[in-house]
Amino acid sequence: MAKELKELTNKDDSYSQWYNDLVVKAGLAENSAVRGCMVIKPYGYAIWEKMQRALDQMFKDTGHENAYFPLFIPKSFFSKEAHHVEGFAKECAVVTHYRLKNDPEGKGVIVDPAAKLEEELIVRPTSETIIWNTYKNWIQSYRDLPILCNQWANVVRWEMRTRLFLRTAEFLWQEGHTAHETKEEALAEAKKMIGVYKDFVEGWMGVPVIVGHKSENERFAGAEDTLTIEALMQDGKALQSGTSHFLGQNFAKAFDVQFANREGKLDYVWATSWGVSTRLMGALIMAHSDNNGLVLPPKLAPIQVVMIPIYKGLEELAQVKARLEGIAAELRKRGISVKIDDRDNVRSGFKFAEYELKGVPVRLAMGPRDMANGTIELVRRDTLEKETVPQEGIVDRVEKLMGDIQQNIFDKALRFRDSMITRVDTYDEFKRVLDEKGGFILAHWDGTVETEVAIKDETKATIRCIPFDAPEEEGVCIYSGKPSHRRVLFARNY
Amino acid sequence: MAKELKELTNKDDSYSQWYNDLVVKAGLAENSAVRGCMVIKPYGYAIWEKMQRALDQMFKDTGHENAYFPLFIPKSFFSKEAHHVEGFAKECAVVTHYRLKNDPEGKGVIVDPAAKLEEELIVRPTSETIIWNTYKNWIQSYRDLPILCNQWANVVRWEMRTRLFLRTAEFLWQEGHTAHETKEEALAEAKKMIGVYKDFVEGWMGVPVIVGHKSENERFAGAEDTLTIEALMQDGKALQSGTSHFLGQNFAKAFDVQFANREGKLDYVWATSWGVSTRLMGALIMAHSDNNGLVLPPKLAPIQVVMIPIYKGLEELAQVKARLEGIAAELRKRGISVKIDDRDNVRSGFKFAEYELKGVPVRLAMGPRDMANGTIELVRRDTLEKETVPQEGIVDRVEKLMGDIQQNIFDKALRFRDSMITRVDTYDEFKRVLDEKGGFILAHWDGTVETEVAIKDETKATIRCIPFDAPEEEGVCIYSGKPSHRRVLFARNY
Repeated sequence: MAKELKELTNKDDSYSQWYNDLVVKAGLAENSAVRGCMVIKPYGYAIWEKMQRALDQMFKDTGHENAYFPLFIPKSFFSKEAHHVEGFAKECAVVTHYRLKNDPEGKGVIVDPAAKLEEELIVRPTSETIIWNTYKNWIQSYRDLPILCNQWANVVRWEMRTRLFLRTAEFLWQEGHTAHETKEEALAEAKKMIGVYKDFVEGWMGVPVIVGHKSENERFAGAEDTLTIEALMQDGKALQSGTSHFLGQNFAKAFDVQFANREGKLDYVWATSWGVSTRLMGALIMAHSDNNGLVLPPKLAPIQVVMIPIYKGLEELAQVKARLEGIAAELRKRGISVKIDDRDNVRSGFKFAEYELKGVPVRLAMGPRDMANGTIELVRRDTLEKETVPQEGIVDRVEKLMGDIQQNIFDKALRFRDSMITRVDTYDEFKRVLDEKGGFILAHWDGTVETEVAIKDETKATIRCIPFDAPEEEGVCIYSGKPSHRRVLFARNY
Repeated sequence: MAKELKELTNKDDSYSQWYNDLVVKAGLAENSAVRGCMVIKPYGYAIWEKMQRALDQMFKDTGHENAYFPLFIPKSFFSKEAHHVEGFAKECAVVTHYRLKNDPEGKGVIVDPAAKLEEELIVRPTSETIIWNTYKNWIQSYRDLPILCNQWANVVRWEMRTRLFLRTAEFLWQEGHTAHETKEEALAEAKKMIGVYKDFVEGWMGVPVIVGHKSENERFAGAEDTLTIEALMQDGKALQSGTSHFLGQNFAKAFDVQFANREGKLDYVWATSWGVSTRLMGALIMAHSDNNGLVLPPKLAPIQVVMIPIYKGLEELAQVKARLEGIAAELRKRGISVKIDDRDNVRSGFKFAEYELKGVPVRLAMGPRDMANGTIELVRRDTLEKETVPQEGIVDRVEKLMGDIQQNIFDKALRFRDSMITRVDTYDEFKRVLDEKGGFILAHWDGTVETEVAIKDETKATIRCIPFDAPEEEGVCIYSGKPSHRRVLFARNY
């Protein structure tokens, strides 16, 4: 808990410094002594736990089961799928030894050279290889399919530039890995799961997303199609928030996973994988928060209502607190989490600022005058509107407010996002919008990797996706002038 | 799912082979391609998830919060607490490089020698060092205390001989790490948490435990006192099921964590840590199961009731299934998990054997004769008793049975455990009981490490604990003949 509430950097002065201040000062996470690895602090972890619970239930409701696969992957497994190794080899943490020993020269402990592994182990950056090596033993016939597994795990990708939650060497995530009889079934699974992600990110996090296909250049290493949900942050940059991959038969072929199909013939198994990570915490923070701190949607807030007694002396405190506890008990009966903060070593104003910083959706304060008048002060975090309302009916009012705030947060983010989608028809306009406005840009593209890479090199904008709902529309590529049949979604991104 | 239900090895022929068969054939876990690392399969993971949920709630109910700390620990951190490094240095997985590259000779990928870390990173075998290095920044004054954090995580200890769940290189666990103002508060915390573990292992897993202090020789590396719960397996060997450590000020001193106390003076912080792991899965399996397979306590069974329709032809199936679905719906309303297995490609006898193997607490089967008679066949897994009972009242009966089975499993394990505690007064008797009967032995010990080590070397028995409830009793050490004031608990162990 912050001992001193220092001001956050203003969002308009430096968005990235504001973000970092907020993550640290709201007690969400901090950098650790290990390069690129973060400590997720209790308040941040409590939000992540709520995300996990909701997602886990959605996975189970769609027929998936959890399992757990090894942290380590033998180096040779990586080479088996050519694109996969190319995609991940440059950011792998490698275990080479399995023992330390005392330094014979007396300088602490050293790696024991006698304990070198025959084959190096990679700390998983993702688990397709070890899982498909395992599935080989689970699958003989179509009767063993589908396999619908998910894993909650930590993974490591050695990033050179890291930012709390958004890009860390170690992060927490879930990875679904499914195996299917037919291409159609695998395609349907990949699509179903990107839909689950969309429902979660919009319905729980209050962050609107655009769903679509990645271009070939932005696909997952080893996938034949990558579906993505793309969110827009308040600084006009996009954030890829979840991906779902149709892997074709690539991993089945790499690990020789065949099954006897309904015709009794051997065929390779079809695969998907899909994942979201603690990066979603970054999306949640950046999408809604303001210069006073976090703004949390009620569905993910560890504390939904904070109550602060205003008093002089212990007698007044006892009276006010008794009344607050009565209201708290009623709210808890309705499944609303409540904290009463009666600390006497900090002023009320300090508490108000602290819970604003922490994004608690509703604040109730009550003092002797409220006691006399039968009123209570209510502040909602999303709008910072303050009202004095009757104590009578406060429980109904707060319960309703939970839904209202959840909806308002989403609506506000949606209005902003929609205002930040610009259609452009020339490359000059494209560059001007990128620099002056930011946000998503819908533009024609000739469908080639060369054009995409050239645009990226010149502007730092990438194709975020080819939206599912992009209508057919004849046009010409803003870069090459070649024909195009639909607009795709560009943006600079995290 | 086992395609073919092969017989388990008989428990009396080879307990260890029976255990391994059971873990694999019941679909709980299997060895992976990575030495010493297991794959936890969906059915096994579903049990672990139930354990996690229950424990997590117990931790929260006692005021703890979850957080997450890095997977990697800088090597130098290890050297800071002398006993700690000595205890863990010999079983550490060491990350030395952060990149792979294509072999210039074209032989797949190799570790990039240019990507050598300046300081090697250890994959955490436990997290005291990285956590206390973090706490240093969280603690300035007594107002910042206590810190009551828990982490759910994977850890790695490079074991040479591994066994599924019982001893694996990577395992899943939780580790609590708390920081306190006073010695008394830390001692009370360590004691409270071993009590939580006892309540969980007895109340949920149905496994009775003996609680006590570890001898100095068996203490956690870096602890001043280690509390333990010790369970007895059916082969008469003990299994340490959870430990809670009073760490004194050792880690605070190693990482220079001081706080301003209530008198305004600087003092070192007091610490505890405590953990249970997927090893509990091994205890659960070994404590109750039989030659037909797993026996699961209802509170941890992923499927509590399985229903099997007996039928000829689709019409009969439809009638029987409709009736079963009605009962299932009623059971689910009471929070009981039910599976109806109407597969038509395996016989009922195969299904019966399969759910016995998987330890489903209650099996209900219904055929046309039952439909006519208003009856249903009920088999409870713990006793394998079979009855034909009226359909009327079946929901109440099954609900009551959940509690009865939970209690019966515990009572049976308790009777066995109590029958396997033997008091001995001579070393000859000690050795004879160990070899002929096994189990726990209560004997006098002179309190020295030398005697403990000598007994261990000669008999493979160790002091499992000095039980909390060991009464004062004057006697002489069975080994040295020196005076002793209480009996301690010996056993051979996992």
